[in-house]
Amino acid sequence: MLEKLIKAAKGEVKADVVLKNASYIDVFSGKISKGDIAIVGEKIVGTGNYDGETEIDCTGLTVLPGYIDGHVHIESSQLSPEEFASLIVPRGTTTIIADPHEITNVCGMDGCEYISRASENIPLDVKLQLPSCVPATPFETSGARLDGGEISKHIKKDYIFGLGEFMNYPGVINCDRDVIKKLEAAHAEGKIIDGHAPAVYGKELNAYLCGGITTDHECVTKEEIEEKVSKGMYIHIRHGSSTQNLGNAKFINAHNSRRFILCTDDRHAADLKEKGHIDDALRRLVKDGLDPVTAVTCATLNCAECYNLKWRGAIAPFWFADLVVVDGLKNFNALYVLKDGKLVAKDGKALFDTSKRYLPKTVLNTVHLKELCADDFKISIKGNKVKAMTIEPGGVVTGCEIVEVKNEDGDINVKGTDLLKLAVVERHKMTGNIGKAIFKGYGLKGGAMGITIAHDSHNVILLGDDNAAMAKAANKLKEIGGGMVLVETGGETHYLTLDVAGLMSSCDAENLQSYSRAIIEQAHGMGVKREYEAFMSLAFLSLAVIPRLKILDTGLFDVEKFAFTALEAE
Amino acid sequence: MLEKLIKAAKGEVKADVVLKNASYIDVFSGKISKGDIAIVGEKIVGTGNYDGETEIDCTGLTVLPGYIDGHVHIESSQLSPEEFASLIVPRGTTTIIADPHEITNVCGMDGCEYISRASENIPLDVKLQLPSCVPATPFETSGARLDGGEISKHIKKDYIFGLGEFMNYPGVINCDRDVIKKLEAAHAEGKIIDGHAPAVYGKELNAYLCGGITTDHECVTKEEIEEKVSKGMYIHIRHGSSTQNLGNAKFINAHNSRRFILCTDDRHAADLKEKGHIDDALRRLVKDGLDPVTAVTCATLNCAECYNLKWRGAIAPFWFADLVVVDGLKNFNALYVLKDGKLVAKDGKALFDTSKRYLPKTVLNTVHLKELCADDFKISIKGNKVKAMTIEPGGVVTGCEIVEVKNEDGDINVKGTDLLKLAVVERHKMTGNIGKAIFKGYGLKGGAMGITIAHDSHNVILLGDDNAAMAKAANKLKEIGGGMVLVETGGETHYLTLDVAGLMSSCDAENLQSYSRAIIEQAHGMGVKREYEAFMSLAFLSLAVIPRLKILDTGLFDVEKFAFTALEAE
Repeated sequence: MLEKLIKAAKGEVKADVVLKNASYIDVFSGKISKGDIAIVGEKIVGTGNYDGETEIDCTGLTVLPGYIDGHVHIESSQLSPEEFASLIVPRGTTTIIADPHEITNVCGMDGCEYISRASENIPLDVKLQLPSCVPATPFETSGARLDGGEISKHIKKDYIFGLGEFMNYPGVINCDRDVIKKLEAAHAEGKIIDGHAPAVYGKELNAYLCGGITTDHECVTKEEIEEKVSKGMYIHIRHGSSTQNLGNAKFINAHNSRRFILCTDDRHAADLKEKGHIDDALRRLVKDGLDPVTAVTCATLNCAECYNLKWRGAIAPFWFADLVVVDGLKNFNALYVLKDGKLVAKDGKALFDTSKRYLPKTVLNTVHLKELCADDFKISIKGNKVKAMTIEPGGVVTGCEIVEVKNEDGDINVKGTDLLKLAVVERHKMTGNIGKAIFKGYGLKGGAMGITIAHDSHNVILLGDDNAAMAKAANKLKEIGGGMVLVETGGETHYLTLDVAGLMSSCDAENLQSYSRAIIEQAHGMGVKREYEAFMSLAFLSLAVIPRLKILDTGLFDVEKFAFTALEAE
Repeated sequence: MLEKLIKAAKGEVKADVVLKNASYIDVFSGKISKGDIAIVGEKIVGTGNYDGETEIDCTGLTVLPGYIDGHVHIESSQLSPEEFASLIVPRGTTTIIADPHEITNVCGMDGCEYISRASENIPLDVKLQLPSCVPATPFETSGARLDGGEISKHIKKDYIFGLGEFMNYPGVINCDRDVIKKLEAAHAEGKIIDGHAPAVYGKELNAYLCGGITTDHECVTKEEIEEKVSKGMYIHIRHGSSTQNLGNAKFINAHNSRRFILCTDDRHAADLKEKGHIDDALRRLVKDGLDPVTAVTCATLNCAECYNLKWRGAIAPFWFADLVVVDGLKNFNALYVLKDGKLVAKDGKALFDTSKRYLPKTVLNTVHLKELCADDFKISIKGNKVKAMTIEPGGVVTGCEIVEVKNEDGDINVKGTDLLKLAVVERHKMTGNIGKAIFKGYGLKGGAMGITIAHDSHNVILLGDDNAAMAKAANKLKEIGGGMVLVETGGETHYLTLDVAGLMSSCDAENLQSYSRAIIEQAHGMGVKREYEAFMSLAFLSLAVIPRLKILDTGLFDVEKFAFTALEAE
């Protein structure tokens, strides 16, 4: 194998592929060079003047190393890994550090294994982090539990690259025994541990880092970034759909530059398709004034160094030929993408087939519910005052407002008010748990809606002004194996299937998006205010690590007190 | 274990050791910070404000990460690993990438194993590279041969860190089958390969790099350095006793800085003791204008990144407490050195005991000779003209001069002339091989001298104007198991024992130096010109990879023609 590379490097034999007359970014020297780039098999063999069996004219174009997304939850795209790849590879991303936290909360290690196997036949390196915090809190019912013992067992697996974002930073700082066991297991295997420690400073940060944690994608302020860089963390510049911190780039300087890397964390299919992936981050960063070569270095070599991805992230002899040919360093439009030396996308279109998707039974039919009826959604209280949840448009932090309700026939009647019933129905273990709450200001009228994406345990979240419609929505979600449902009282039922763990669709990206647009429009048609993301805003109402009032399958939860609370106000 | 670190990081329990009120270099941000540095066990747990069981007042002092020597042959110090450590650790070096190329040429894998085991009980990380080119040329008789098969076997060993400098760059570029086997074996184990490719450019460099080679310590010109950096190599800035390229530092800039690392390659004990080790390089680099924080970063984090030494090379929580406390960034005088959290040197003195040195039989008694007599050194020629070798003072390149000799009684008589007899006696396999030559201009009169250091096969090199004295010198070297010998015709015999492989001394550094100074002085007393390093200049007369005329145990060798040549001139 080496022999062939060496002979082609010398020019004694033709290279397999040559990118002719290219400008290319030299991330080592921080400059743009000119010449041909010769490729044999999966490797670059040389830069200079070369002939190839196949030649791609790159006159006027710029070649960059393939982008590396340092932290991403594929599930947030609602797409299978194959279809996810079909959107991001044509944008120039050739490696991702994927944390299958969501699907693992539903399916346990079957979820990890699914992502791993589904990624085997796509031209994208998927480095899989073992989710470290499943479930995210001990207060709710999730589909799986990876305690220290489980983590110790699974972290040894070859397909597991490292330990995913350690969100339970209080657990680290407080030396929770099970947390320590997880961290020590990862170190014993020499595997990297990703971090997640928003607004942790000083000695608490030192304590968190003594867990042996390498990265952070949550920081945004100058003070926090500077301290974390000084203490050895790699800082992710995040370009998600909702959560972004591209502004972190303004703290890059000549000395600390190598410690900044790019990621997307959570990015919707629509954004991937319409705006892009890491390429969009680069476009934005350069527009905001970051030197393009520095920006590209963050997205390539720096990330490869952080995750010890040997021979990836640069254009040099013996490095893997993961390459993106762009029209320039302003628009970053990818004209060609090569992965391990093979041309895998051209003019923004994937050249690989994703029609045969891996779809094991282990991740299907994950909505385990008893048949529900209208009475299951009755809310019995003594008085007529309750704590109503609210949510700001575009946010994930919820509020709490004391409201008066109509207490009729042993139930709260919300019809004709600005209030709705909110329920979280446990869907993993058939416990029959239903947590109930009152939600204010969302706008839905005359029916119910439901979704099986509900961070992080992904139970069924239902919203409605009609108990029977809510039951019908839940039963429909069970029938279709998860997704989104909209039930008009006395009328039609609309739905979108997310058959993979109730989180992702097994269909193709194109279809998913058109179905998705349709049902969202129908929800707005039933009154959901346009300032909300009709279904996805609901998915954060059960996330018990973000203030203030949340609803779990086990009941109403006051995040600030970190304890359950009564629905009825005193 | 983590629990203790975390609790101390939080300040809940006292740290083991705290460096109080320090300035310290933050290699991530490129700045100097202030605070206490707290240590528990072998790790730093935090920077800030801490109390410790032991506290070291660092007011007015600066703390740096322990230095890493990226490429060194311990044998060049003529000291055991233990004694080598006793000189360099107090200077601030805490990790070395050691290539035991010399001892392996004599003892084979026993030599590697000796260095490894002798390094086990010293407070210095010795990362051992498997010598890649043993023997250095196929033309001479060495003590060992590591072909592709041997390399494939030994590279798998746990104590082997990587593959040592691949000096046989023509072999890589020309796809020599055995060379390819060695390279592929290292890649199969995921082990790093060090480079050595002086003045290799363009497609030949591409070809060399397609061997998967990471570093180069031979380059010196702007053009060569820039090309090698661009093509992904780490560039060593070398501070050896003879070979230095500190000037490479002037090609460091903000973009390429992370690709420069420091090394010493070959450094004599006297320089280590009197001038220093990496600390001396830093002193010189800063004096020459390099930013001190950049210089320290090259000697620490950069080198750790190059060799993937996880959690080494910086001062941050969870990083190993390899630390040097210096008086300032001008003089770099090390007042304290900590290795893995333990104080191991103070005020330039080692605090560890090196009196019990590991000394296995496998590396002793390596001078295998039949008893030699005066007649063995007769040189029979037909005419009276021969090719005489010459050497420039301070250099290793030899010259060739045609000289007239006295051809008397079937021998060349050099007495009373400016000529000397030079002989290389094979000492590994008892072949009886003696290569003979004539050497001009060295100055020795009335006797003979000999040494068992003779690069790279380390046969016995003898020089003299008296056949009987030469035989006596050889026999003495056999008797003492290697070293340096000086025989006065009809007078005394002086010697220095290098009992370990005939290359290194098992005695302590102090004694070795005083013996060494004495015998060198005696050699000059016998006429060896003071512009030569009396014994060590001889050690390069057999190095058949450096021009022009060399003497091997197998005969006189013309390096430019890469072939043997007759002694007698036409």
